[in-house]
Amino acid sequence: MSKYDVLCIGNAIVDIIARCDDAFLVENGIIKGAMNLIDAERSALLYERMGPAIETSGGSAGNTAAGVANLGGKAAYFGKVSNDHLGDIYRHDIRAQGVAFDTSPLNGNPPTARSMIFVTPDGERSMNTYLGACVELGPEDVEEEKARDARITYFEGYLWDPPRAKEAIRKTAEIAHAAGREVSMTLSDPFCVDRYRAEFLDLMRSGTVDIVFSNEHEVMSLYQTSSLESALAAFREDCKLGLVTRSEQGSIAVTREETITIKPVPVENLVDTTGAGDLYAAGFLFGYTHGRSLADCGRLGSLAAALCIQQVGPRLQVSLKEAAEQAGLL
Amino acid sequence: MSKYDVLCIGNAIVDIIARCDDAFLVENGIIKGAMNLIDAERSALLYERMGPAIETSGGSAGNTAAGVANLGGKAAYFGKVSNDHLGDIYRHDIRAQGVAFDTSPLNGNPPTARSMIFVTPDGERSMNTYLGACVELGPEDVEEEKARDARITYFEGYLWDPPRAKEAIRKTAEIAHAAGREVSMTLSDPFCVDRYRAEFLDLMRSGTVDIVFSNEHEVMSLYQTSSLESALAAFREDCKLGLVTRSEQGSIAVTREETITIKPVPVENLVDTTGAGDLYAAGFLFGYTHGRSLADCGRLGSLAAALCIQQVGPRLQVSLKEAAEQAGLL
Repeated sequence: MSKYDVLCIGNAIVDIIARCDDAFLVENGIIKGAMNLIDAERSALLYERMGPAIETSGGSAGNTAAGVANLGGKAAYFGKVSNDHLGDIYRHDIRAQGVAFDTSPLNGNPPTARSMIFVTPDGERSMNTYLGACVELGPEDVEEEKARDARITYFEGYLWDPPRAKEAIRKTAEIAHAAGREVSMTLSDPFCVDRYRAEFLDLMRSGTVDIVFSNEHEVMSLYQTSSLESALAAFREDCKLGLVTRSEQGSIAVTREETITIKPVPVENLVDTTGAGDLYAAGFLFGYTHGRSLADCGRLGSLAAALCIQQVGPRLQVSLKEAAEQAGLL
Repeated sequence: MSKYDVLCIGNAIVDIIARCDDAFLVENGIIKGAMNLIDAERSALLYERMGPAIETSGGSAGNTAAGVANLGGKAAYFGKVSNDHLGDIYRHDIRAQGVAFDTSPLNGNPPTARSMIFVTPDGERSMNTYLGACVELGPEDVEEEKARDARITYFEGYLWDPPRAKEAIRKTAEIAHAAGREVSMTLSDPFCVDRYRAEFLDLMRSGTVDIVFSNEHEVMSLYQTSSLESALAAFREDCKLGLVTRSEQGSIAVTREETITIKPVPVENLVDTTGAGDLYAAGFLFGYTHGRSLADCGRLGSLAAALCIQQVGPRLQVSLKEAAEQAGLL
């Protein structure tokens, strides 16, 4: 028996979420729907211009770990916070969800990472991330036992932004594969794919990564094509299992042999898309590590994503386990 | 013309909000529906036991100031935070809502106040407040110009918990009355009324306070009666205008001459009652300072409260002005 179902590795970020109109994004040079990296100075400027906000723990892979635990799965997390108030909040929230989180925090500067997330009336989120303490995540933070004991490791493409996290990923993948485990990643963001296309393709083609999560924009960015068909054809050759989420059109799972189309879960009231992809991965990976069919894994992912976008913030305020049971998926 | 419609004075608190079941409240000795005062030690213990949370600026009168500004009114606020991260969040959020907030922050300890709020499945909130920097609010924090320039001053009964805030209130009330303004308060909480019954009655009977907001539990606690009728009869003698909110039964406004019954605004989905009373006061005071009838003031209050309890947290994530316009109230 494995001690953990899913080990997630990512940038440990506290989200600061506020609403704005589309003009605000234009006036402030924020790319809509994207993750915009910012420095401390721009962080201060944008915060000054930001409306009243709420704070919640976030971080892509952290949201996935919390989602797996919320479903009743055993999750662990590697991520770097600082010894400050936001770091305390981050540690509290992920542990309180039942996720094993023991990465040693940074003593002092830089502070815990934060992302200012602006949500427009259409529910789309545009992120502005100051990486802070995340730049210090490195191979020394890999807990070998967790890497070995988790059925599947899952990490963010975003981890290619800080300087040394990629070394932690390579080390973890080696340990995991040596123990007969699988490794998965998310492509994270179309611009992130643009920045690290060659490296991401190499991770896939070298077998460092077995399973890849993406949305349609990211997978098309990966293969620099405007055709989803062409992207899928290449995608299925480059990884053992590829997932492509398509918002209200559901999602697609591709392997070399098959293509599985997964229906979306209807959404009554779209509030905030923050975390949708992360929660899709959570539902999928819970199903995957519990021996479900790919179609069922996709349904669990769709349900988790649908619940997530009907609330503010990426950490579910409801019980995903109960919702999945009610939907007949557990 | 007045520079401000409403000056609010209160404990400046960051809310930490999580869900729990009723058993959790019992096991942890938390009085349901109440504001429980806690010290730093119990604060740490409860946080350890608390589930994943979100953070938002709160504080009863701060929520009211934010609500007035959200309606398009001119609001100011006195409240004490510390020079720390939660203090930064508090200052940001209230200013970003358009509220004038210039109380000088405390340098160093105690830290900014926080309230751990547990929301049970019925939507009821149970608060656990560590007062932190709020204990340092005193008469030196009264900005005379704001006290003089605001059409109405509004403060929390909760301010009788910290040691010197009552001196700030008496000073502000004197300045306000000398300038021909009115002063209002909320009774805050039935247990708070229990602690300071004689002083609250004296504030009303001495004319220090003209208008009093309460809910039915508080007003019945004030007069130590289990009859709302008897409480209302006494209430209308003790203040110029008394408001009593009654959850899904709407609210009542009483003066010496009349009793006005105000219908509630239907609520589809009760999520979290945190801030309901504060937002009622915001809507009412906006109407009151804009020359509306008492019935219309009550309707604005009911609308604001109804919007508030259909979301998590006490600061509205939607435009109250737009909602009031759509409801034909503006």
